[in-house]
Amino acid sequence: MTASKDTDQWVTPEQFEVWRQFIKVQARVLRRLEADLLDRHNMPLAWYDVLVRLLEADHRRLRMSELAERVMLSPSGLTRLVDRMVDEGLVARSPAERDGRGFYAVLTDVGYERLREASGTHLRGIHEYVVGRFDEEELATLASLLRRIEP
Amino acid sequence: MTASKDTDQWVTPEQFEVWRQFIKVQARVLRRLEADLLDRHNMPLAWYDVLVRLLEADHRRLRMSELAERVMLSPSGLTRLVDRMVDEGLVARSPAERDGRGFYAVLTDVGYERLREASGTHLRGIHEYVVGRFDEEELATLASLLRRIEP
Repeated sequence: MTASKDTDQWVTPEQFEVWRQFIKVQARVLRRLEADLLDRHNMPLAWYDVLVRLLEADHRRLRMSELAERVMLSPSGLTRLVDRMVDEGLVARSPAERDGRGFYAVLTDVGYERLREASGTHLRGIHEYVVGRFDEEELATLASLLRRIEP
Repeated sequence: MTASKDTDQWVTPEQFEVWRQFIKVQARVLRRLEADLLDRHNMPLAWYDVLVRLLEADHRRLRMSELAERVMLSPSGLTRLVDRMVDEGLVARSPAERDGRGFYAVLTDVGYERLREASGTHLRGIHEYVVGRFDEEELATLASLLRRIEP
């Protein structure tokens, strides 16, 4: 169960350490990115992620179910998040026309403006904490190793 | 803000794609590991993580503040989690003797047993979804790239 015990059948201690490092490094980076967004733009990282996914979508809108999938939240978790973003005017709700089931989340002009203001901070963080630390070849190696993990 | 727009100053589209892949791959792996634990042991991944951290600690106990740091949860988030684990008898609370401030979370025998039952599933998942996909040299390369990301 730990790096030193009971790991011999499936995972060696060395493998377990790399696994832990993989988890820890990403959690720390996400924490720093969120701290920067909160400090400078009063915006949680999950809000930023929702705004970007809406900006990328056709007509700047997504069905709630599709948005939940993209930001990797549960439907109930996303509903709570979007409720707060609607209260702040960053997102609007729009009924799904055709089948009358469900709602779209739509990026508002205010949401776009807030995203535009925050994006420099966020991208600078991604550069500083992660991708800017590698040259092109190293980045390609990392990408190729990550692809091996994908299901 | 997306891979194709506004990323030129800090992050190239290629770098942005690797960043997204890094996040996505880990989220998917964690989701699969959690699904396995829930299916087979009715145990959320965060519970497993708490049980392992307690097992690794001296006297199988940790101050709540220290445990929160290790499992990377907010103090309030950890309190809610541990409340439910205490209800199920996996963890006990014990007052911190010396200064009278705060509590320890302590691994119970029931908690140890549940962890022991679940650990095969979890370690097998770490093998199958991640570390077993690399040979020794590749794993060392991944570890060395991850170390570059650490703050």
